[in-house]
Amino acid sequence: MDSIKDKTAIVGVGWTRYGSIKKPLPESQYTLACQAIMAAIEDAGLAPKDVDGVMRFNFDSNDPVRLAHSLGINLKFFGKSMYGGGGGCACVAQAAAAVYAGMADYVVAFRAISESQEVALGHFASQFAQLGGIPGSMGWIMPFGLMSPAQGAAITASTHFSRYGTTSQHMGNIAVAQRKHANQNPNAFFYDHPMTMEDYMNSPMIAEPLRLFDCCQESDGACAVIVTSEERARDLKQPPVYIMAAAQGGLWYPNSMNLLDKIADLEKDESWHLAQALYEMAGIGPRDVEVAEIYDHFTIHVLCTLESFGFCKKGEGGPFTEGGRLEWPDGELPLNPSGGNLSEAYIHGMNHVVDGVRQLRGTAPAQVKDADIVLCTSGNAVPTSGVILRR
Amino acid sequence: MDSIKDKTAIVGVGWTRYGSIKKPLPESQYTLACQAIMAAIEDAGLAPKDVDGVMRFNFDSNDPVRLAHSLGINLKFFGKSMYGGGGGCACVAQAAAAVYAGMADYVVAFRAISESQEVALGHFASQFAQLGGIPGSMGWIMPFGLMSPAQGAAITASTHFSRYGTTSQHMGNIAVAQRKHANQNPNAFFYDHPMTMEDYMNSPMIAEPLRLFDCCQESDGACAVIVTSEERARDLKQPPVYIMAAAQGGLWYPNSMNLLDKIADLEKDESWHLAQALYEMAGIGPRDVEVAEIYDHFTIHVLCTLESFGFCKKGEGGPFTEGGRLEWPDGELPLNPSGGNLSEAYIHGMNHVVDGVRQLRGTAPAQVKDADIVLCTSGNAVPTSGVILRR
Repeated sequence: MDSIKDKTAIVGVGWTRYGSIKKPLPESQYTLACQAIMAAIEDAGLAPKDVDGVMRFNFDSNDPVRLAHSLGINLKFFGKSMYGGGGGCACVAQAAAAVYAGMADYVVAFRAISESQEVALGHFASQFAQLGGIPGSMGWIMPFGLMSPAQGAAITASTHFSRYGTTSQHMGNIAVAQRKHANQNPNAFFYDHPMTMEDYMNSPMIAEPLRLFDCCQESDGACAVIVTSEERARDLKQPPVYIMAAAQGGLWYPNSMNLLDKIADLEKDESWHLAQALYEMAGIGPRDVEVAEIYDHFTIHVLCTLESFGFCKKGEGGPFTEGGRLEWPDGELPLNPSGGNLSEAYIHGMNHVVDGVRQLRGTAPAQVKDADIVLCTSGNAVPTSGVILRR
Repeated sequence: MDSIKDKTAIVGVGWTRYGSIKKPLPESQYTLACQAIMAAIEDAGLAPKDVDGVMRFNFDSNDPVRLAHSLGINLKFFGKSMYGGGGGCACVAQAAAAVYAGMADYVVAFRAISESQEVALGHFASQFAQLGGIPGSMGWIMPFGLMSPAQGAAITASTHFSRYGTTSQHMGNIAVAQRKHANQNPNAFFYDHPMTMEDYMNSPMIAEPLRLFDCCQESDGACAVIVTSEERARDLKQPPVYIMAAAQGGLWYPNSMNLLDKIADLEKDESWHLAQALYEMAGIGPRDVEVAEIYDHFTIHVLCTLESFGFCKKGEGGPFTEGGRLEWPDGELPLNPSGGNLSEAYIHGMNHVVDGVRQLRGTAPAQVKDADIVLCTSGNAVPTSGVILRR
């Protein structure tokens, strides 16, 4: 059986302006979803009635039927991803699978988020209360004080520091590069807010060794993309951006109770599993990737993901960040040129897919010259997902 | 672009014993899921490590990662369906799409339910409280007293009665036929509990004109099926049951606020939309279907679904139930030969898929002779899904 490689394409992208819990947008999550989806439909040169599928991000509270009624979408396919930040690219992947299976013609994958009005995801406790309960596995770690995502990531970072000699400056290189990129992007929340390494080092400690600027924002906004078959994509308004590979990555832990080991598993994390599946389907390797849209809830997980995707060896992620290697326009692997979750907005990684598409169209705010292949990943440290896009 | 028609197959089925809120099973929803999944894996002649995808029913609280850890599944794909009873076949459909897309090799689709330990779904209010909130659309109908699914179905039934002359006896024909079938099935909850039309007519009124025996059970139990590619299916333990078509069906209401109209939309309900998609993909029509596994939360919706799938004309569902037409073994369209949600167990329609597979293998408790094509549907009156299976 063949795979979905190059059989589907992203033909429309849409996004809203971005706010944060400190500078909230007045729009509800519902209104933000409508805005981003309509923008994506218009971008694709389609009408709402052409769209017949909706793939929702799992933490999103929008009802696809309500959206379909409101916008005039003819709802033949609907689904939702799982596991929070791991599910952004899964929305794109499952949209693509539905199109390829003949279950729908044009599927919109979206994430709308209003952390100012709904729930600030930095806090596990309030998040799970709102989402209807604490997942079983959290019962193993919350009693030990891991009440927020940053605290879990801090264990990963501490382990990486002690095992490989990684430093705060290495993580700072990621934060500073992305802030530099955001200052090319007028829609980024931190546009016109430059940040130096000194600023980074002076930012308050959140969960040692993670500083404020190692952590993603808590944002308001929405992003949407439209997926269709490669045949249909040929005749639409925009140059098609093909989905070379789409995959999800879970884990297989023989000892499931030892979740603290999991948090500190730096060798074969979720992204490592994802990388195997994506590269195999795409038939490429890390040297072929020209733009890295790596999910950045925390700088340390960007570093781990770069290792897991083979851009450098395990343990060498720290030095790999040096010498401007990740910086647009001259670095060899521009990282999150839109500013990413850290400096553009935390649209749960769906903004990474939007920027990936714009890179391949040649219309990105911080355009990587002649980009042909872009890797987009969702969150590491949870069951995750990713896509490889090409023009 | 081609479709998924005949490209995937169900190669394993598993189920547990069944209980109810009045005769509870001691097993948790988690244990029930493990039992059904392991049974399906064994039935397929596979090992847990062969399985690399989990498609979860949306109201199910099992965490695919926890299941994967517990059972030894290598988790490459995971997803969940939406909209309650409409999502059983969607689990199979999305599992098939993932396999066809090359995202996984063997995906288990399952539903485990413990209404005795978790939530009795007959009550909207408690259900939504447990599930984390009241979906937006319910806000339009709950203030008018529609607090339970039976009350919504009662409006559909009343409308059908007044518009088409449908009677209680017509709904009773469905309930009595399925109870007869359950008495062929030793695992059915109502095995050894015969029911006559007189019993049916004497059962208490729940929401006029719906009587107790028009309503599905509130059950404990689990069912699982394993989906793989048709190539892989050829060499496995069981004769493959091919998925001829897989689809979901939403609705497009220009006037989304008029939900009471929706409840009484007897012409083009969710099943009507689903039928168009399924028949188109399968390239067959109602005359080709030999066994009808129709989701039966309420008898009236079985009747509406039979109409929407073209087994009879709109409005003629009542008379269509007469003369033993739906009864095994001699009726022309045996309906839910396992007993269905009404009389086998309410495994949210996943038991219908299990029986459909067994029918095509020739191993069902109430075996329809030489069955070649089976229709399985999920719940009408919500966004729904279905599959057409063939041997």
